[in-house]
Amino acid sequence: MSKGQPLIRTVDGGITAPRGFRAAGVACGIKRRNPSQASAPLDLALLAAEGPVPTAAVFTINKAVAAPVVISKEHIAQSAGLASGVVVNSGCANACTGDAGMEVARGMAAAAAAALGCAPEHMLVASTGVIGVPLDLGKVRSGIDAARKALSSTGGDDAMRAIMTTDPFPKATAVSVDSPSGTFTVGGMAKGSGMIEPRMATMLAFLTTDAEVEPAALARVLRRVTDETFNAITVDGECSTNDCVFLMASGKSGVRITRDDDPALLEGLRAVAGHLAREVVRGGEGATKLVTVQVTGAASHDDAWLAARTIANSPLVKTAIHGGDPNWGRLVAAAGRSGADFVLDAASVAVGPVEVFVKGVPHDERADEAAVVLQAKEVTVSVDLGTGGPHHATMWTCDFSAEYVRINAEYRT
Amino acid sequence: MSKGQPLIRTVDGGITAPRGFRAAGVACGIKRRNPSQASAPLDLALLAAEGPVPTAAVFTINKAVAAPVVISKEHIAQSAGLASGVVVNSGCANACTGDAGMEVARGMAAAAAAALGCAPEHMLVASTGVIGVPLDLGKVRSGIDAARKALSSTGGDDAMRAIMTTDPFPKATAVSVDSPSGTFTVGGMAKGSGMIEPRMATMLAFLTTDAEVEPAALARVLRRVTDETFNAITVDGECSTNDCVFLMASGKSGVRITRDDDPALLEGLRAVAGHLAREVVRGGEGATKLVTVQVTGAASHDDAWLAARTIANSPLVKTAIHGGDPNWGRLVAAAGRSGADFVLDAASVAVGPVEVFVKGVPHDERADEAAVVLQAKEVTVSVDLGTGGPHHATMWTCDFSAEYVRINAEYRT
Repeated sequence: MSKGQPLIRTVDGGITAPRGFRAAGVACGIKRRNPSQASAPLDLALLAAEGPVPTAAVFTINKAVAAPVVISKEHIAQSAGLASGVVVNSGCANACTGDAGMEVARGMAAAAAAALGCAPEHMLVASTGVIGVPLDLGKVRSGIDAARKALSSTGGDDAMRAIMTTDPFPKATAVSVDSPSGTFTVGGMAKGSGMIEPRMATMLAFLTTDAEVEPAALARVLRRVTDETFNAITVDGECSTNDCVFLMASGKSGVRITRDDDPALLEGLRAVAGHLAREVVRGGEGATKLVTVQVTGAASHDDAWLAARTIANSPLVKTAIHGGDPNWGRLVAAAGRSGADFVLDAASVAVGPVEVFVKGVPHDERADEAAVVLQAKEVTVSVDLGTGGPHHATMWTCDFSAEYVRINAEYRT
Repeated sequence: MSKGQPLIRTVDGGITAPRGFRAAGVACGIKRRNPSQASAPLDLALLAAEGPVPTAAVFTINKAVAAPVVISKEHIAQSAGLASGVVVNSGCANACTGDAGMEVARGMAAAAAAALGCAPEHMLVASTGVIGVPLDLGKVRSGIDAARKALSSTGGDDAMRAIMTTDPFPKATAVSVDSPSGTFTVGGMAKGSGMIEPRMATMLAFLTTDAEVEPAALARVLRRVTDETFNAITVDGECSTNDCVFLMASGKSGVRITRDDDPALLEGLRAVAGHLAREVVRGGEGATKLVTVQVTGAASHDDAWLAARTIANSPLVKTAIHGGDPNWGRLVAAAGRSGADFVLDAASVAVGPVEVFVKGVPHDERADEAAVVLQAKEVTVSVDLGTGGPHHATMWTCDFSAEYVRINAEYRT
């Protein structure tokens, strides 16, 4: 290992892979049991540290914000970035539920705090599921009671399953990071936005590490990594009322991180958060392909992201990729309308390695070659904005299929 | 008729309804003839005034701008808002065609100017069709020659058909306006964005009037009316490389308009432009419903439009309406993420007249009633942002069907 270059290896265990965390996932009756299911679906997860540890959070920017997000924001501010645990339910978002919903979110945090023997402000809370439906606090309390008894250092897998709604597959990962100061672990789990059931749409992610990091540095590094990972993905451009990302640092590895640009912590978090973010896209509604959108040649940082975001959300780009069509015209048009500086005569487009539009000149003779590239399950499209600027951005999106429309239009039938 | 209140009646004739205009639509071989078509499809339109008349234009904001847009912008600036005519072809957008494409657009304007005996800078030019394919100037010249011979004061209908690409139906209208100063006429035609063929996407609209209006006032009134009509519609949030709206004023009615806020001119233009704009949405790809999005209670003008635009482009809102689902949660979430000021506890949502979310409280007991409203071909959804502000905005959009994806993904099969 070269000095300062962290060595990263994937390990098992998800959020309980780092030392100092226990978790559980239980069924408490919030989700209805489907006749095809052998047992009641898991719908409550509890994550516990061994007392208050540095914790950072990033929340949805949606102004129609759900009750659990309000409470978690309050608690993390009151506790100055310390938390002992997180309680999460699926099946009900506790969003658009008014004052009653706020009381339930507060009661859910209080019950979980009592179970772990910590102060209420050291407990964070998250919910995902149907909007506008009351969350039953009695069920939540019974779930917390069961989860407390089930807490274990191998409980990450159950917790991961308990936060799923209609995700097509569960999402968790962990890495071991060898840094010059020693070895520590980063783990995580996430749920994506599956909206097969009415009004269901949330991305939740929970990250843990046994590195020792101060709350302020932890908040800065989480913001930075979130911008490069969870904030760099899109399925349909929608941003939910309940989205949040939490990161808890137990310090149990004995590895102390003193700088928030420490490469080992950054790379470890990027590995876990990047993997989970791409898994959320891969499990997006109706998605059949994971698409990496690379923008280069931008005049500013903001322009690079504006163009990447516009391309990644363009229905015409996403349907063209779904249809296997190397349609550079739609990529050029999306970049051109994005608001970013764009110089048509100097702009270029590539599909995988195949340059289909080079400095303003179409190369449609390469269309068949590019179409072959688009047959893969993972594809990259690259757009150079032609300004000669040094800025770039990478986003991940999925293709756009008729299945997306079916899922979101036809659930009442 | 009450004083100052213009009386508006729909009349026949489209762009040639106002006095002082002749038009023609001809076939010159730019569009391929489909085996199912009895005759070659019309693909070149010519609109001619009796010499240079005040003319205003609004162009695409896409920075990947097509050659005809560049030339028309140049000409309208050089001529200080005067033009003798417009030449339009369909079947080829002359976009992303480099310097050669600029020469073709310039040659197309020069040929049409020669045919009408006017200066080249008095001729405007527009194209719609496939991006990235050269436009054959020879075909265009033969089309202009045929169109010159065919020009007539009843040629609006042929011109309307000649600008269509894959529009499901042609779009034209005209109104007669009785104002205190006399009667004048406003006419118009438009094409929408149908993208069944590869890389085809443009909205073009051509408006005429026989009112007498100075160029500067004409430019201001066209900008204002365009913002309320063509800029207030969306099919899929995409903005093409070739979009433009032209308005020519022949003055032949003898009715002189001296103020750019003249209610008769404004109302006449709103009637024609509003009708054409809604027709473009109704003919949008895969559209089955015309949806009016009304936003009220906004803290600012910009907020009202931001929220309306976000709702009108939300895939989740558009799929819910397609599925007949009065899903207020998706409307609330779209308004909340729009960036506009939004107060959840004071916000309301209605589907037609049915209030399904009132000041932060769901009324799901009215869901069945609202679902009946959504069965209609034309529906209105209203969102009050709850800020107590006086600002409002209205946009028109369509629902989002699996057919949209099929049209845009599967044309290669």
